[in-house]
Amino acid sequence: MVNPGGPIKTPPSRPLPPRTRNGDDAGGGTRDALPGVTVPPRVSRRSSIPAFEVMRITDEIARRRAGGHDVVSLCAGEPSARAVPGTLQPAGYTGPLGTAPLREAVAGHYRQWYGVEVDPATVAITTGSSGAFQLAFLAAFDPGDRVALASPGYPAYRNILTALGVHVIEIQTGPDTRYQPTPELLDAAVGEHGDLAGLVLASPANPTGTMLDRAALAALVAWCSLRGVRLVSDEIYHGITFGDDGQDRRGVTARELDREAIVINSFSKYWGMTGWRLGWALLPDSLVAPFEALASNFALSPPAPAQELALTAFTDESYAERDAIVAGFARARKLILDAEPSLGWGVAAPSDGAFYYYSELGPQLERFADSVEYARRLLAEADVAVVPGVDFDPVAGSRAVRLSYAAGESAVAEALDRIVRFQNDG
Amino acid sequence: MVNPGGPIKTPPSRPLPPRTRNGDDAGGGTRDALPGVTVPPRVSRRSSIPAFEVMRITDEIARRRAGGHDVVSLCAGEPSARAVPGTLQPAGYTGPLGTAPLREAVAGHYRQWYGVEVDPATVAITTGSSGAFQLAFLAAFDPGDRVALASPGYPAYRNILTALGVHVIEIQTGPDTRYQPTPELLDAAVGEHGDLAGLVLASPANPTGTMLDRAALAALVAWCSLRGVRLVSDEIYHGITFGDDGQDRRGVTARELDREAIVINSFSKYWGMTGWRLGWALLPDSLVAPFEALASNFALSPPAPAQELALTAFTDESYAERDAIVAGFARARKLILDAEPSLGWGVAAPSDGAFYYYSELGPQLERFADSVEYARRLLAEADVAVVPGVDFDPVAGSRAVRLSYAAGESAVAEALDRIVRFQNDG
Repeated sequence: MVNPGGPIKTPPSRPLPPRTRNGDDAGGGTRDALPGVTVPPRVSRRSSIPAFEVMRITDEIARRRAGGHDVVSLCAGEPSARAVPGTLQPAGYTGPLGTAPLREAVAGHYRQWYGVEVDPATVAITTGSSGAFQLAFLAAFDPGDRVALASPGYPAYRNILTALGVHVIEIQTGPDTRYQPTPELLDAAVGEHGDLAGLVLASPANPTGTMLDRAALAALVAWCSLRGVRLVSDEIYHGITFGDDGQDRRGVTARELDREAIVINSFSKYWGMTGWRLGWALLPDSLVAPFEALASNFALSPPAPAQELALTAFTDESYAERDAIVAGFARARKLILDAEPSLGWGVAAPSDGAFYYYSELGPQLERFADSVEYARRLLAEADVAVVPGVDFDPVAGSRAVRLSYAAGESAVAEALDRIVRFQNDG
Repeated sequence: MVNPGGPIKTPPSRPLPPRTRNGDDAGGGTRDALPGVTVPPRVSRRSSIPAFEVMRITDEIARRRAGGHDVVSLCAGEPSARAVPGTLQPAGYTGPLGTAPLREAVAGHYRQWYGVEVDPATVAITTGSSGAFQLAFLAAFDPGDRVALASPGYPAYRNILTALGVHVIEIQTGPDTRYQPTPELLDAAVGEHGDLAGLVLASPANPTGTMLDRAALAALVAWCSLRGVRLVSDEIYHGITFGDDGQDRRGVTARELDREAIVINSFSKYWGMTGWRLGWALLPDSLVAPFEALASNFALSPPAPAQELALTAFTDESYAERDAIVAGFARARKLILDAEPSLGWGVAAPSDGAFYYYSELGPQLERFADSVEYARRLLAEADVAVVPGVDFDPVAGSRAVRLSYAAGESAVAEALDRIVRFQNDG
């Protein structure tokens, strides 16, 4: 039915100090840790590939030119007569971690939204958050490592990790923990499967939209810090939030609580730049060089025109425009919440943020075999497309569906009408 | 000195028929192969991750809309109010293998340049050739597999494969085989290391610029076909060629000779669109689904604005413009070849294509410890940047340097003057 309980409110707590390095980088695991002593997570062995030497020389050329030298470069494998006006437009490679102005602009965004100082040298611009996830997983985890994540959750985490030989430990979550992992659930997972190398969190989450507040995130950070577990924090839906949580209303960034966390974000959701494929990662100091080496080999550089465009994302005008679009998401969200009684579904996740509504179908499952059958017939008979939960949760997803209200108010209103008619006529 | 010998000329031969599937896909290796019977290469185990279900529904929505249905989609995790005019520009996700018009345009390019029919369903648009290499290696090879490649060669092949747990078998090449692998060199490598799962070829190659002619490529294809070895053919420098080899003057595409090969190409070099990050792969039928599943998880979609722009790449006007730029590369190349006596270096690779000149330093090494020292001092004392060969060949690269003449005629002329003065004054 309706959202179970209200948001979990916890007393405000102070940010944790950065984790101290007190162990061997190659170590990790909990076994040698004294109680209460933090353990820095490992850097992966497989990230120890060399960076592309050409990139280092390119840096040296830039330094010399900045110093007034007239350098002739026969270095880059890139046509300087790049394009012809009127047809193809010029755009050269950038550095593997992106342009300096954009890295600085991203750092400024953390000052603006979170009051957090970020060194631009630890910002990596990536080819969407997808580019950030694959490089982060390669930099942090080796084959055979165990990494935990919430189910239901974004399937690409699971699938990328699996393809890279990492063992995915799925933490089955439900309404009692707001569909988010907790220290207790992680303890149980370690008891069953063994020590973890990493934990992937998402707040707001896909497909549920649920968020971790400051205390809940701090508790998970503390759990990771004691055990050498690398936290990967997916924050791509920050800013698309519907609560009124004061300083934390955009979301709480793990960067504030854990300097060993990899924070991943994107220009796709709040800024709506999906097709441009541009995102970023905030890296712990120990991962900057491995991440750069991986990026220089796997990607060379993130897309250059998108980086130029993204410089306009952090102006007051742009924030205001995007917040107006978020207000539209809020209206579409309210239509769904108001329609809950007439939908007659089961338990829904509290849709704190993102633009997702994830609900069990409840009584509807007396008439449809599962959510796949429900979604298939809804599309075939009423021309409304929703996603069955099995994409996000192979176990309990057969009872749930995800509605994206990113399509806006009028599409959502029309879809709700059709769904109710479909269910009544069926 | 000068290029050793002329281009290796071989009599024209007929294209091989496509490999026949006569074995178990899971097999591979040479042991069970009857003499003369072709063995289809394997698909990797790790590519058996599920595709993102949302993408399948997106296809179904498109089909229904094409059939006249008024579909309301609450499916995509993508703002439909994507952007505001004047600031951020709208661009949505495309399919994971790119837009249908661009896939068709790429197929048309193979008809135009090579007289080869390509099914657009086997064309995958990727985020640069870098995006194609990582997905191709994931789709074709598992950890522990052995994959051979030429040394000197593009370092990212080696580094991506290594990070993905694949054993790289470096085939040391030199002027006697045009810096390219041969069946004899591959036989020796198998004798030393064991059966191969794959072979990466590049023609024109980086850093040497050397090319495989039709007979040389056909011999390597035949060697692979008998042994279940997956050929990955890097053809990103096709079209930047300086010979007059009739129908093969753009380069010979492995697609014509081997339907089990993965052919990789890019809009970065011939079309000069480096910073846009757009490339493609031609896939064997058995790899289309695994490659798409990987792409839908690792990348979601290639950059959309770049795909739109790239549609203009295959017009007569565009080909003419790009060929004019290649003519400029040819003039810059000739400056270097004409300067060989005054440079006083050692053996150089025949610069058949790309925009690279790779040469041993020869007598210069009496005065410089190695190519790293030579390049460092050339930049510090004469402000000319070249790349020491160690980036491309950890063994013999300490004696060689790579010059890129993509910078054009006047830059090359100035650089040559400075190099000669640097060597004479030194």
